[in-house]
Amino acid sequence: MSVEREILEFVRIPSARSNTVAEGLFESALTKKVLELTQREFPNWRVEADEFAPGRFNMLVADGTDSPSVLFAAHLDTVEVGAGWTMNPTGEIRDGKLYGRGSADMKSGIVAVIEALRYARDQGLQGIAALFYGDEEYDFLGMKRFVEKYRGRLNPKLVVCPEPTHGKLQRGCRGVLEFQFDVVGRSGHAARPESGINAFTAFCSGLAAVEQFVRQTAPDEYLGDATVNVTGVQCGVRSAEASVSEPLLIAGNVIPDFCSGVIEIRSIPGVVRAAIESEFTKGVAGAGGVVESARCIHDLPSYVTARGSLALLEEAIRASGGEPAYGDARRFGYSDIAMLANGWEVPALNWGPSGSGAHGPDEYVDINSVKMLVRQFCRVVDVICQHQVSSR
Amino acid sequence: MSVEREILEFVRIPSARSNTVAEGLFESALTKKVLELTQREFPNWRVEADEFAPGRFNMLVADGTDSPSVLFAAHLDTVEVGAGWTMNPTGEIRDGKLYGRGSADMKSGIVAVIEALRYARDQGLQGIAALFYGDEEYDFLGMKRFVEKYRGRLNPKLVVCPEPTHGKLQRGCRGVLEFQFDVVGRSGHAARPESGINAFTAFCSGLAAVEQFVRQTAPDEYLGDATVNVTGVQCGVRSAEASVSEPLLIAGNVIPDFCSGVIEIRSIPGVVRAAIESEFTKGVAGAGGVVESARCIHDLPSYVTARGSLALLEEAIRASGGEPAYGDARRFGYSDIAMLANGWEVPALNWGPSGSGAHGPDEYVDINSVKMLVRQFCRVVDVICQHQVSSR
Repeated sequence: MSVEREILEFVRIPSARSNTVAEGLFESALTKKVLELTQREFPNWRVEADEFAPGRFNMLVADGTDSPSVLFAAHLDTVEVGAGWTMNPTGEIRDGKLYGRGSADMKSGIVAVIEALRYARDQGLQGIAALFYGDEEYDFLGMKRFVEKYRGRLNPKLVVCPEPTHGKLQRGCRGVLEFQFDVVGRSGHAARPESGINAFTAFCSGLAAVEQFVRQTAPDEYLGDATVNVTGVQCGVRSAEASVSEPLLIAGNVIPDFCSGVIEIRSIPGVVRAAIESEFTKGVAGAGGVVESARCIHDLPSYVTARGSLALLEEAIRASGGEPAYGDARRFGYSDIAMLANGWEVPALNWGPSGSGAHGPDEYVDINSVKMLVRQFCRVVDVICQHQVSSR
Repeated sequence: MSVEREILEFVRIPSARSNTVAEGLFESALTKKVLELTQREFPNWRVEADEFAPGRFNMLVADGTDSPSVLFAAHLDTVEVGAGWTMNPTGEIRDGKLYGRGSADMKSGIVAVIEALRYARDQGLQGIAALFYGDEEYDFLGMKRFVEKYRGRLNPKLVVCPEPTHGKLQRGCRGVLEFQFDVVGRSGHAARPESGINAFTAFCSGLAAVEQFVRQTAPDEYLGDATVNVTGVQCGVRSAEASVSEPLLIAGNVIPDFCSGVIEIRSIPGVVRAAIESEFTKGVAGAGGVVESARCIHDLPSYVTARGSLALLEEAIRASGGEPAYGDARRFGYSDIAMLANGWEVPALNWGPSGSGAHGPDEYVDINSVKMLVRQFCRVVDVICQHQVSSR
């Protein structure tokens, strides 16, 4: 089967949160498909399925070793289809581009990983493993479970995750620090600002303190600087009952006593949870407000793999006629292989095909870039697994 | 009947928006009470009722002249009772204070005005009129109607409104400019701020421009400076359907494309609607956003009465043994007699008793201050109406 035929087959299977039970919860229908494929095609290999959430499984496929030279890690879930598509979200090829939800992120990557497994099997190479996992686009339940369950039992020398990177190597990513902050002021009459404490102003003062702290943190050599996104702001007067479910009252002549908002930070070393909470609280206090609640939604650290530990990989890329190129971490999102890289102290990188629209409408992957990726993955397997054999 | 007995009678009658039909819409039960009282006690005077909204009436009580020396204007409605009361909101006297919703704002004032009318009647003084009106605490429907309907037909020389001013004379008030601004950005991935335009940041940039403009406007000699209140902010991602009724989507990793908020300004001369809209729009544009909608909720200009036009009034206060004292306009809210002052170019002031909690729990009026006010109102009627008679 051609690479594009196999990608189309995978894209046709929905893998998003909104799936009905009949379609298979999240990525579970695709998990079943890949499980059957690997059991059929790799009858002599280990294929382990591990339930990380009801009805949802991680799958580890390995040629036997507990210390693989390379562990490919590919997530099976996708974001929702969403609105605005002009192409078929369940798969369509036009002008060398394969359109569809998950085409770039990352069903092409899954196919490229399976192709690398087939190559290793056919060449009799040792030391390859692949993790097919779920929930990367949502709450990272698959990776969290995998890192815990296989810690100390599996010791890969390198992790490769095929997020669409336009062929660039992403040897790190910034972390995610996300908070919902509830700020309380004191209501009063708008004609007399001193009669109250405007909770919106206090929230903004906290936000400004966070932004200043982030700006003043020295950029990381590879990751660049941290950035801040603010959203989900709601501000008004709480009803007397102060019930969470009560809507806020809004009157222009009343100083609002409540402001809640979400602050999400793409973090680098130095930008840590405690510092952000402290800066926000100080900023709010500076405007007379009080942080009633600081709920940390995500605390996912950044990671960087040293370039020196990727020498063999660079060699493999050169051997395939390419030149290793590293991507701009500032243009790359969070990848949950950071959990593997940090938890197991293993070199890890994202490296995948060219495409666009990964979380929007008309997502596509460039088919030639997938074919190139398959060739390079196979050459990596050649060089790295060969190397292991020769060093024994 | 004693002054406090009459205030208690009026406080017992609910006059807020939440009234049931049986209680009388808004202030209408109190309107009926005052209408009966004036028809009974002033059988030879004009008593005109004018429907300004279904079932709701303004009342003009006058001794016959179309050019009264003084027009008292007292609103009959109150704000809602609200939460947090430890005293009886329908009336209770303790330690010289009369508690209850509307006790200070402004049912004591209504009683003081009626006492002044009785005094004029008993003394045979000419040139007094009183307007009892509604909706001052809500949408100013009563005063709007009165200004329109009686323009050119009634020409008072002075307007006195008994808002609780602690006995001070308020010869002006700042205006109210209130907007709901909807700001649109562009959604994008939080990891790449340049992939979108954060609508919250754009809204705050517009707000900052408004605040700067307000700060840079020269303070008015009497009114002081203008102030800004922001509330009702809502920010997130609009659904694809962009329906107004759809809730905003909130995800920390998505740059929000929509932010709506209410900005309310206590205005002085120079701080006008067009300037605020222009400054906000420029500020938003500076952050890459667009003002999708700028709804002006209130555009109520400030007013100031020159002190020189109050010479007779000052004389009357001195004649009663007092000393005229002017209040700080920065500590005084908007009063809709501004519409009269501006529309008819008539000197107008607020002048009322001492009290507290006007729009909050445990509102009260100091009973002695009401008695003092009654004496001073009567002396004003003496001096001003006497003056008119002697100048004929």
